[in-house]
Amino acid sequence: MATKTSKDIRNESRFMVLRSVYAGGTVTRAQVAAETALSPATVATLVGELVEEGVLREAGRISSQGGRPTVTFQANPQRGRLLAIDVAETYVRLDVYDLALARVDREQVELDPGAQSIESIAAVIAGALRSLRGREALGGEPILHAGVSLPGQVDTVRGVDVFAPNWGWRDVPVADALTEAVDAPVRVDNPLMAMATGELWFGAGRRFRDFVAVNLGTGVGAGIILDGQLVRGRGNSAGEWGHTTLVWQGRGCRCGRRGCVEAYVGVEGMRTTLGEIAPDHPLVEVRHHRAFIEQLMRAEAAGDEAAREAVLRTGDHLAAGLGNLVNLLNPEHVSVLGWITRYAGTELRERVRERIQQECLPGPGAGVSMEFTDTAGESVSLGMAVLALEGFLEQVGLPSPSSLPAPPAPAARTPHPAAWAVPGTATRGSR
Amino acid sequence: MATKTSKDIRNESRFMVLRSVYAGGTVTRAQVAAETALSPATVATLVGELVEEGVLREAGRISSQGGRPTVTFQANPQRGRLLAIDVAETYVRLDVYDLALARVDREQVELDPGAQSIESIAAVIAGALRSLRGREALGGEPILHAGVSLPGQVDTVRGVDVFAPNWGWRDVPVADALTEAVDAPVRVDNPLMAMATGELWFGAGRRFRDFVAVNLGTGVGAGIILDGQLVRGRGNSAGEWGHTTLVWQGRGCRCGRRGCVEAYVGVEGMRTTLGEIAPDHPLVEVRHHRAFIEQLMRAEAAGDEAAREAVLRTGDHLAAGLGNLVNLLNPEHVSVLGWITRYAGTELRERVRERIQQECLPGPGAGVSMEFTDTAGESVSLGMAVLALEGFLEQVGLPSPSSLPAPPAPAARTPHPAAWAVPGTATRGSR
Repeated sequence: MATKTSKDIRNESRFMVLRSVYAGGTVTRAQVAAETALSPATVATLVGELVEEGVLREAGRISSQGGRPTVTFQANPQRGRLLAIDVAETYVRLDVYDLALARVDREQVELDPGAQSIESIAAVIAGALRSLRGREALGGEPILHAGVSLPGQVDTVRGVDVFAPNWGWRDVPVADALTEAVDAPVRVDNPLMAMATGELWFGAGRRFRDFVAVNLGTGVGAGIILDGQLVRGRGNSAGEWGHTTLVWQGRGCRCGRRGCVEAYVGVEGMRTTLGEIAPDHPLVEVRHHRAFIEQLMRAEAAGDEAAREAVLRTGDHLAAGLGNLVNLLNPEHVSVLGWITRYAGTELRERVRERIQQECLPGPGAGVSMEFTDTAGESVSLGMAVLALEGFLEQVGLPSPSSLPAPPAPAARTPHPAAWAVPGTATRGSR
Repeated sequence: MATKTSKDIRNESRFMVLRSVYAGGTVTRAQVAAETALSPATVATLVGELVEEGVLREAGRISSQGGRPTVTFQANPQRGRLLAIDVAETYVRLDVYDLALARVDREQVELDPGAQSIESIAAVIAGALRSLRGREALGGEPILHAGVSLPGQVDTVRGVDVFAPNWGWRDVPVADALTEAVDAPVRVDNPLMAMATGELWFGAGRRFRDFVAVNLGTGVGAGIILDGQLVRGRGNSAGEWGHTTLVWQGRGCRCGRRGCVEAYVGVEGMRTTLGEIAPDHPLVEVRHHRAFIEQLMRAEAAGDEAAREAVLRTGDHLAAGLGNLVNLLNPEHVSVLGWITRYAGTELRERVRERIQQECLPGPGAGVSMEFTDTAGESVSLGMAVLALEGFLEQVGLPSPSSLPAPPAPAARTPHPAAWAVPGTATRGSR
């Protein structure tokens, strides 16, 4: 049985201060206190610590009537750089951020499809970083910390990629190779947690404390935010909504189960749906994911009946999957993000809005809001920048545990002798 | 954007102190401090407040070598009584607890099936209470607070039963009638939240901070505990796992959706499954829920092939539904409770254990434990006693917000103008 220590509370408070600075841009201590409900004394202490570490700096002074001028603060863009690295299955992208979390440069390298090793990924990152070093935005600036998003299930605490099926990765240690490649401390995570962190700091998290950020892409998942905190689960694997059964004994999914949400609303799911409706439709052969979605949506908008039917069926499955989340978690809000939403036309959005009404129970359905946004790509990058910032703060002794799971506390978590443990990956076979 | 106030933190700390007292029975301040990781000074203050209100009392003194004797404390069974009232669809049960949360008496009244009014329920409660008053355990003792579990979706903050389909209740105000019936302050909630609270205080919550307590009965649901806190959701409706779609376009569910988990693993779901396997099986006509389950399990154990097949299919659906929870939430543990587990034979448990391995992804599946227990009936009662205790502590100015949702903070939750709200119950029709 663990409880919050005063250190935990201070960390949470620091997180609130930083979020209010990033939301406001240039702020006074009084504004931070008003927005966070922290005491003026606490805010003064925390701001002082952040100024001392160079994370914040004085922005100016506002003269107040008859009194001392009020100091304003902002994030310090001159303190150094953060790297947000998005390692996807077909590309590696490095984004350079300043401590104001403004993106100042970007370098992207395409990857050959198929198997990759962590060594080859690290080499690609090192090469891209050399290009960035040759340009002005990064130049010789110190890299304070890097956040690296990797595909699959990532153990943030151990620095291990637990399971990345498309590359055949299982329990691959990644932290050392990446640290060497960027010559800076590294925090690893998966894109879903990164996206949810971005949404928490810069998206729906500014308006809601209980919400779900659903990512629609090649894979699909749901970042769950409860009480203003990202739910990571026991091993940083929470949010695998894409691998919950929606269609009993339905289509095979790449995870090995049948009828998963992803097998219907992910890109391959949509292509399969189109093939079921019209096996000879030319788009069934378009295997490039973005090209397929773009052309499917264009065909639908142009009146192609099979494309329209595929979009509507996808909307029905998506609405049911979202309804499951609403009924199970009773959130205030659902954000639907991901690159698919950039191409998704009115028909898909309207279908989901129409259908979700029947999918929610009266209680959880009452008053929940939903938005489609296309900011997920930026959310992953921003989220990794935030995680890099958190890593940096911890490194200088100012942890900000908005989202990183605590290392396990073995004493409190010993299973009961009578408990039955689901066998782990070792006995699982080839999923 | 809200943050924790020092009052919230003190409330959380008080909750930890109380839980450690209930876990230990008789404890010293030092033991509480060791178990909760609170400072000795904080523990001394909180224990002092609880002693002052009569919730705790000195139990004795342990002489320590060469120093002052150490005082031991325990919950005070003489301070008054708590009522835990379980209003189910076929009975009303009143349990009397002392402040040590020991049950000291019980009175149960059967209800006629079918529609009920809150007035008739209140009259039944008042009658049962008169019987209890005539016996020694309650006698003339003051009732400090009552916790009332009501079927359906219950708005704890407003004291309203939002939706109880089997009684045709929609937005029925219940708090006033119940308060009058017991002549004491009342807190209302639904059985799922009560059961999960009981599990949090006295069951799996003693060993795990992230777990799911699944209830199997006429209805099914999942109490979600994350970071030691019960997830209630925006309107106290979280946990409606029974109304998540598992079988796309499957059986109609009493909620109005199709293919819900409950339509397969709830009692009526099992009866329907048996009817699909063997339409002329005599048990298909057994409409009393407990009798049906008892006889089904007995027939299965005796070698009845159709009964066996129905149990196995139920196990397959249950395993998939549990797998969905594990993949989505990545908990440390899953408790399967509910009166069905009391009758469930080896076959059902073994089938679920065998099948769930294929239903979990490697990450979330690694190391999650699962238990079947039959304590749910007691968990609902204990949970309502805990909620009554919390209500009493709030009443005397010592709130302990382990599980009660905060009233909504409208300013922070105003939907974005662009957000789309799912229409509420008013436009929903006849579900």
